[in-house]
Amino acid sequence: MALVIDDHFHDQCGVVAVYNHPEAATLAYLALHALQHRGQESAGIVTSDGKRLYKEGAMGLVGDIFTAATLARLPGRIAIGHNRYSTTGGSCAANVQPFMVGYGLGQMALAHNGQLVNGQQIRESLEAYGSIFQSTSDTEVVIHLIAQSLESRFTARIVQALRQVRGAYSLVLMDEESVVAVRDPWGLRPLVMGTVDGATVFASESCALDLIDAQLIREVEPGEMIVVDRDGLHSSFPLPAEERRSCIFELLYFARPDSHIFGVCVNGVRKAFGRQLAREAPVAADMVVPVPDSGVPAAFGYASESGIPLEPALVRNHYVGRTFIEPSQSIRNFGVRLKLNPVRGSIAGRRVILIDDSIVRGTTSRKIVKMVRDAGATEVHLRISAPPTTHPCHYGIDTPTRAELIASARTVDEIRAYTGADSLAYLSLDGMLAVAAGAGEGYCTACFTGNYPLAPVVTSRDQLELFSP
Amino acid sequence: MALVIDDHFHDQCGVVAVYNHPEAATLAYLALHALQHRGQESAGIVTSDGKRLYKEGAMGLVGDIFTAATLARLPGRIAIGHNRYSTTGGSCAANVQPFMVGYGLGQMALAHNGQLVNGQQIRESLEAYGSIFQSTSDTEVVIHLIAQSLESRFTARIVQALRQVRGAYSLVLMDEESVVAVRDPWGLRPLVMGTVDGATVFASESCALDLIDAQLIREVEPGEMIVVDRDGLHSSFPLPAEERRSCIFELLYFARPDSHIFGVCVNGVRKAFGRQLAREAPVAADMVVPVPDSGVPAAFGYASESGIPLEPALVRNHYVGRTFIEPSQSIRNFGVRLKLNPVRGSIAGRRVILIDDSIVRGTTSRKIVKMVRDAGATEVHLRISAPPTTHPCHYGIDTPTRAELIASARTVDEIRAYTGADSLAYLSLDGMLAVAAGAGEGYCTACFTGNYPLAPVVTSRDQLELFSP
Amino acid sequence: MALVIDDHFHDQCGVVAVYNHPEAATLAYLALHALQHRGQESAGIVTSDGKRLYKEGAMGLVGDIFTAATLARLPGRIAIGHNRYSTTGGSCAANVQPFMVGYGLGQMALAHNGQLVNGQQIRESLEAYGSIFQSTSDTEVVIHLIAQSLESRFTARIVQALRQVRGAYSLVLMDEESVVAVRDPWGLRPLVMGTVDGATVFASESCALDLIDAQLIREVEPGEMIVVDRDGLHSSFPLPAEERRSCIFELLYFARPDSHIFGVCVNGVRKAFGRQLAREAPVAADMVVPVPDSGVPAAFGYASESGIPLEPALVRNHYVGRTFIEPSQSIRNFGVRLKLNPVRGSIAGRRVILIDDSIVRGTTSRKIVKMVRDAGATEVHLRISAPPTTHPCHYGIDTPTRAELIASARTVDEIRAYTGADSLAYLSLDGMLAVAAGAGEGYCTACFTGNYPLAPVVTSRDQLELFSP
Amino acid sequence: MALVIDDHFHDQCGVVAVYNHPEAATLAYLALHALQHRGQESAGIVTSDGKRLYKEGAMGLVGDIFTAATLARLPGRIAIGHNRYSTTGGSCAANVQPFMVGYGLGQMALAHNGQLVNGQQIRESLEAYGSIFQSTSDTEVVIHLIAQSLESRFTARIVQALRQVRGAYSLVLMDEESVVAVRDPWGLRPLVMGTVDGATVFASESCALDLIDAQLIREVEPGEMIVVDRDGLHSSFPLPAEERRSCIFELLYFARPDSHIFGVCVNGVRKAFGRQLAREAPVAADMVVPVPDSGVPAAFGYASESGIPLEPALVRNHYVGRTFIEPSQSIRNFGVRLKLNPVRGSIAGRRVILIDDSIVRGTTSRKIVKMVRDAGATEVHLRISAPPTTHPCHYGIDTPTRAELIASARTVDEIRAYTGADSLAYLSLDGMLAVAAGAGEGYCTACFTGNYPLAPVVTSRDQLELFSP
Repeated sequence: MALVIDDHFHDQCGVVAVYNHPEAATLAYLALHALQHRGQESAGIVTSDGKRLYKEGAMGLVGDIFTAATLARLPGRIAIGHNRYSTTGGSCAANVQPFMVGYGLGQMALAHNGQLVNGQQIRESLEAYGSIFQSTSDTEVVIHLIAQSLESRFTARIVQALRQVRGAYSLVLMDEESVVAVRDPWGLRPLVMGTVDGATVFASESCALDLIDAQLIREVEPGEMIVVDRDGLHSSFPLPAEERRSCIFELLYFARPDSHIFGVCVNGVRKAFGRQLAREAPVAADMVVPVPDSGVPAAFGYASESGIPLEPALVRNHYVGRTFIEPSQSIRNFGVRLKLNPVRGSIAGRRVILIDDSIVRGTTSRKIVKMVRDAGATEVHLRISAPPTTHPCHYGIDTPTRAELIASARTVDEIRAYTGADSLAYLSLDGMLAVAAGAGEGYCTACFTGNYPLAPVVTSRDQLELFSP
Repeated sequence: MALVIDDHFHDQCGVVAVYNHPEAATLAYLALHALQHRGQESAGIVTSDGKRLYKEGAMGLVGDIFTAATLARLPGRIAIGHNRYSTTGGSCAANVQPFMVGYGLGQMALAHNGQLVNGQQIRESLEAYGSIFQSTSDTEVVIHLIAQSLESRFTARIVQALRQVRGAYSLVLMDEESVVAVRDPWGLRPLVMGTVDGATVFASESCALDLIDAQLIREVEPGEMIVVDRDGLHSSFPLPAEERRSCIFELLYFARPDSHIFGVCVNGVRKAFGRQLAREAPVAADMVVPVPDSGVPAAFGYASESGIPLEPALVRNHYVGRTFIEPSQSIRNFGVRLKLNPVRGSIAGRRVILIDDSIVRGTTSRKIVKMVRDAGATEVHLRISAPPTTHPCHYGIDTPTRAELIASARTVDEIRAYTGADSLAYLSLDGMLAVAAGAGEGYCTACFTGNYPLAPVVTSRDQLELFSP
Repeated sequence: MALVIDDHFHDQCGVVAVYNHPEAATLAYLALHALQHRGQESAGIVTSDGKRLYKEGAMGLVGDIFTAATLARLPGRIAIGHNRYSTTGGSCAANVQPFMVGYGLGQMALAHNGQLVNGQQIRESLEAYGSIFQSTSDTEVVIHLIAQSLESRFTARIVQALRQVRGAYSLVLMDEESVVAVRDPWGLRPLVMGTVDGATVFASESCALDLIDAQLIREVEPGEMIVVDRDGLHSSFPLPAEERRSCIFELLYFARPDSHIFGVCVNGVRKAFGRQLAREAPVAADMVVPVPDSGVPAAFGYASESGIPLEPALVRNHYVGRTFIEPSQSIRNFGVRLKLNPVRGSIAGRRVILIDDSIVRGTTSRKIVKMVRDAGATEVHLRISAPPTTHPCHYGIDTPTRAELIASARTVDEIRAYTGADSLAYLSLDGMLAVAAGAGEGYCTACFTGNYPLAPVVTSRDQLELFSP
Repeated sequence: MALVIDDHFHDQCGVVAVYNHPEAATLAYLALHALQHRGQESAGIVTSDGKRLYKEGAMGLVGDIFTAATLARLPGRIAIGHNRYSTTGGSCAANVQPFMVGYGLGQMALAHNGQLVNGQQIRESLEAYGSIFQSTSDTEVVIHLIAQSLESRFTARIVQALRQVRGAYSLVLMDEESVVAVRDPWGLRPLVMGTVDGATVFASESCALDLIDAQLIREVEPGEMIVVDRDGLHSSFPLPAEERRSCIFELLYFARPDSHIFGVCVNGVRKAFGRQLAREAPVAADMVVPVPDSGVPAAFGYASESGIPLEPALVRNHYVGRTFIEPSQSIRNFGVRLKLNPVRGSIAGRRVILIDDSIVRGTTSRKIVKMVRDAGATEVHLRISAPPTTHPCHYGIDTPTRAELIASARTVDEIRAYTGADSLAYLSLDGMLAVAAGAGEGYCTACFTGNYPLAPVVTSRDQLELFSP
């Protein structure tokens, strides 16, 4: 039996695009490697040699999928790539992005980070008019809309297609000769632009630019479409403007701390969340212990603000995979220990503040608290560097249902009791926004507040499912 | 470097369908195994549990792709399956059939043996109206036409779609609740129907029925569509009738000798070709030696008619795969020996008649003749149980270009000289047809005569390619 | 569940050695490929570059184990190789031959076809004096004896070691600079010598020489040791002479028909067995049908002698592996059909003589008879081109226990009844020997007679096992 | 081309043993997983069901090698296991430990962490008396000595064998019924003992006990042999006593920080090294940045002692493997970036103190310093929490030759210049020992001082190699 030993929200995708580089596929591969944290289930790259498109992709990690031989089958100076986390609709090869298709103007490919709120609705109407769907992905809807547009140019067709969809998307597209990058009008998911050796690169996060030694130029703006082709780089804002609503969970957890997105340094914001948490929820203790790796920056902030010493007293085993053989009857549940182990000598007899970035179901936090207590801690105080997560995401994040979110129906004290901590405190919504606001963006906080900037569209098929047993 | 050591025309596909069996996927898997000779590149199975469809498939042999675990992911009492040989458009996972898609009425899947002559033309017009194509296969055209039909029922949509395509096809289709089998009006490719345990089974050849202990009921007729669903089995002839033109190469080489197709026992016809060849092209010799395995039945016929003893003096190594590491400089070309080895003790000092079913490029025949002569044969006479192959096939057979077909531009005596044989004779076209005609079918002989029953449609895209370097 | 669908005795090994060829590893690899029928479980090659030895090997078929990369890790002009069939003691990597070890004089490697009768006895006494054993193979005993010899030269040590062992062996050995080939004094297993491009090659059968274009020089004689090193080729007979007792089952079944061993052409002898069988056990019938592939040569002989036409009416599926997923409850046992299928059209309404080379347990013959009868045969006569196999082999052949051998306790008529045939006849022992004797060798017929040329040595450990539950 | 992007000394092995647990193999597997940092090249487990031994093992990571199916082939209540890092003698299956052999008393298995100084010498003399060696490992020597002992009991043979070898070893051994754990008299490598559910467990480090919820009882003492069998647990000190010389590099780098070995908590000692380093080598700066993961604990200590804030400004990509495809010409060397990336926003304009635990060749440090400077640091000060490593290890650690050790021939200032840092300081030997001494052990410091507690034995074969080109 497989053990799931991670209890976090998960991003569903990372994207990259390269225009005009002699090793476009290799750059895309390296960038996908840097974005591996955004999706570990499958990866793919499509390239163009100016005449036709080539695709390679499979289930697995970037470093396993792409070998020298694979990259050799991806010629050309243009490439787009995609990492995917396990999605609804199941894990299968048909869902491996980028999608590459033939259509009226030739070939095109598309990679998508995000989720459409009217994807299912459009799919049903496309099917009613004779379209066929090979995957369960939203992204295929966008491709159909582009293919069916009557516009004569690729970019005009993209605009026409995007005017019909609503939702979260950072998209990269390509045909034989150009690359297009677009971000939805709310700016929900990140997308940055950089340059290296005269080539233009787009990526979900700036850490991908760093790996390939590209300079960050700027972020793609909400609602902006950037086209790169032999005539150069063209920016336009072809979609109706909306109020900015960037996903604050990117700052809290998804993005790599060394990335610079939404105008801020992720690591810096996370430390500031920790400092704010220390101001809001101080507690007398002997040490601040981060839950690795996600709790590390906030713990540094909490420690520096509180003056309580930081201690790396939970050690992570870097060899753990995502599944593991579970011992049968006679071995006690060891779950979280595969990943984390307390430093007994540091903890015994001390009062410990554990810093993490979220509590989703609560099961992992409960195990960590117990583990730390078993290692001899006299007190265990849990501090979370974000507000309670009470609502699922509809914009491209893999979240449990409301019923599974421990904070959706329980008070903070009930959660504290469940985890077994001596005290529990979350960062306040206002505190979080005050810290993040300095960054100058408007944020989507729906997972904390249920305040969704775009309502999901319920289709007849969804309704049928509501009534099915 | 990989060695190609087979010089034959190759069939491109085998198909199977099962309706109403508790182990539908397993039956499909066994049937595909029996049809492995029709395609060794990839295989796939789609099943339905009455509510939704499930697909498994990959590159490779049936026995490697499908394990107990794979079959367990294919629930339901309905299944279709497909074997594929390497096709134009390249070997890739996107081409693994059956194709399974979502469309206006739900889900459907399709497996195709054959080739459309107007597939590219339809594809271009579909793309012009906004359709997208994920594979390079003709088959996807049929799916689009079904999806775009305005008919309300699956079967009516299939009819409407097939009325627009021309070419060779033995098709099996399914949706959540039914199986449909159709054969093109010329009857180019075989398709048989059988039954086991109350289930209905369709397969390219009857040998697939034998393996699963199903009884052969009859062949699907040219132009016939058979629908099996909860209301039973319905036959109709919805397509314009054409003159029967079954592929005679199925009888000569493609089909397994234990199959019964086109109204005849394949092994029996092959022996009769050999007998006819003995009558047409006798030669004084000490032994008749079949080139295994394809030349075996004709050699039996030749020997029995001529009275010259049969001798299994070429031994086949059954462990050889389709590629092999080639030794470098210092080892002499051993190519064909990996597959065949002469029995020196039987051949030395004897006059040998070699029987094979075809000479395509001539390279393999040349090597075999030399090998037999090196083993001590005093004379080597080559007899081919079919006429010279002079034209490529457009109906689902993988043939070289005309330029590569040794018989397209050389006389029989030039071919003899190239192969190094002391004499060479082919079965005459009339002789072949006289033997086969007894079976009561009209045959396509285009690969011998250039007399194509359906002309391929040249599209603007093809023409462009003509002018490209 | 895995299905065993082959019911034959099985050879346990093939060996090869190459001295002084720039592509020694590649020649060994090709030769092992030609000897694949002698062992399909594992294969290995050891080479020497004159300074040290290199080994590659694994479980699996030769063509899967050795790639260009693997061969590149086997430098040098000297090589020995080994194929192995599943042995007692289990299938595991520790048993993959050739064995390669370091010892007092440097390094050596050894590959063994055969079985020692006093191997276990010597092992026990070696262990008593402190030797350790990493495998369950007899062969390791020989290596220890060589290592412990006080002689100063490799070849003298080999002689001293072999004087202590008794049993069947065709051995090839090597150290950094030489190759040694030895055959036991009874000549139980075959071993031939050839030459190509100035290199010397030893192999279990001559078909391995054919593939690499080597000329057969002669067989290694019973009791002969041939050393090849920089001083040339040296033959000696260092072991006490014994009466020649070559394994007649090599002629009947194990060897490839295109091989030349024990002074005869295998295919020719098999046909002669068939002719003799026709003389001894005629029957009125319409056709002679070989059970492929082992029954083919004898069937040719039977048909030519009897004048009854030969018919290839059982078709073999060449894609079958050795295991297969077994369908569960609702599919009838299809076992043998995976491998063989009758040509219904040839058989229906006819009287059939089936020719096979042996009946071991009888289960497969029973299925084949039933299959042929179900295909419409009016009579099925079974003719076996060897006497009944009543005793297990102790000299390197994988045979069932006596209890499993159907002929060990049943009369020919009881076996006939079990198989369901209308008549059954075996070739007589005298008839077989009369045919084979022409070859000028004395033969071991223990599996037919229980007349063992060397008695197995029973050790205390064996006796303990006799008394264990 | 493969990139090596780690520049550290490496431990060569981890060992584990389990006595009397119904899931012995699973416990061994989990323990090996926890010890994965001690060896990533191969892993193996041997179990006993009381009658015979079973082995599974392969090249690769523990989580990849052992599946539910593999563990099912390892029955019994006794198990030993082994992880191995790449060793001299090459990576091959023959070297996968535990070694399992048959010998005079039955079967035994052995797993070894360490290295013998007279292993080669003993091997040569064993070979001279007829022993054969299948691996290139020291460990095989111990097995031969046990097998050749004239003592009648397993444990007495072990003692007799160990009295002949000198060197570093933490050994676990087993036969059909018992487990034995031994540590060399100098206590060079760690070995701890614990208990869970009545079973006894030995492991290289206590973190392996934590994962399986076993309680740490105590460490195996230097020179102690502990036997566990049906009569219980027996401790003895059968070897001549020596002065304690535990490997201080275990504390500095090898052991997991959450382990408790040599009487101390590893994390605590590492922090103390950092504090001592801050006292010895202070520098004015804005932040202390650990080089993850090895520099983390010392950085915490340095920061707390110096009062300079800690900043996690180097981010590690946890998905990186040990090799990677290297981009060709046009992409600048990105080497270390695959593993580490600086947080630009934290570093820009600041003075940075980098804390690492060692500088081996200097190449990685040079790249990190450049990377941090490129990210905008105004000053980069390098602080190493150990003295300069000037000498190779002969006791089981994989170290480069002296010539490759940058500190062996260069002054600290020359190293500073090479790395490009503004200043460089190492922890002093006295400072290190003062911190560690509190732990009450004597330490081996040979890699810093060349002061080897046991001189390696030079054999005639080694001397020959000295004179070879």
